[in-house]
Amino acid sequence: MVWGAFSFSGTMELQEVQGSQTATGIPIRSTLDQSMTVQYAEQLQNLVALARSVIRDTDPQNDVITLGVCSKSDEIIVATGEWVLAVLQHPFLSA
Amino acid sequence: MVWGAFSFSGTMELQEVQGSQTATGIPIRSTLDQSMTVQYAEQLQNLVALARSVIRDTDPQNDVITLGVCSKSDEIIVATGEWVLAVLQHPFLSA
Repeated sequence: MVWGAFSFSGTMELQEVQGSQTATGIPIRSTLDQSMTVQYAEQLQNLVALARSVIRDTDPQNDVITLGVCSKSDEIIVATGEWVLAVLQHPFLSA
Repeated sequence: MVWGAFSFSGTMELQEVQGSQTATGIPIRSTLDQSMTVQYAEQLQNLVALARSVIRDTDPQNDVITLGVCSKSDEIIVATGEWVLAVLQHPFLSA
């Protein structure tokens, strides 16, 4: 069950979660409430930035494509590029 | 092709990369050279710690199980628990 999805840092029109962006790092659309969205957006940006530094320390031309975190109850998947898409789901619950 | 694997923060005997640990956070065995191992161990510990804080901000009882980073050329998979196991591979190259 996908319980939250949002996109930030992007200009791409999303197919299922459509929106446009006015400022870098501002979530453009989310199914989470506003405070949760802002919280996750900020934290996941930091996480992607740290992952990028890990990758680039050994190859400065390299970059993060996806980042995933599985916890005991949830799964967070982040895809990066010109835009960033994050999906948060409970993989152990049915749709 | 797995090009590097190491474990740290642990006491578990690994099946393929056996070793024992003398201090928390010290890599116990690695197929990478020493400097790369120390570099990745430190960086991945920071990455896991940040991912844990993201997870626990919404649920303090929750914890990270696995963390994965796909880059343009490599893939890093980190499994956490009492011990931490990290595998670094080139998924686009054959074994």
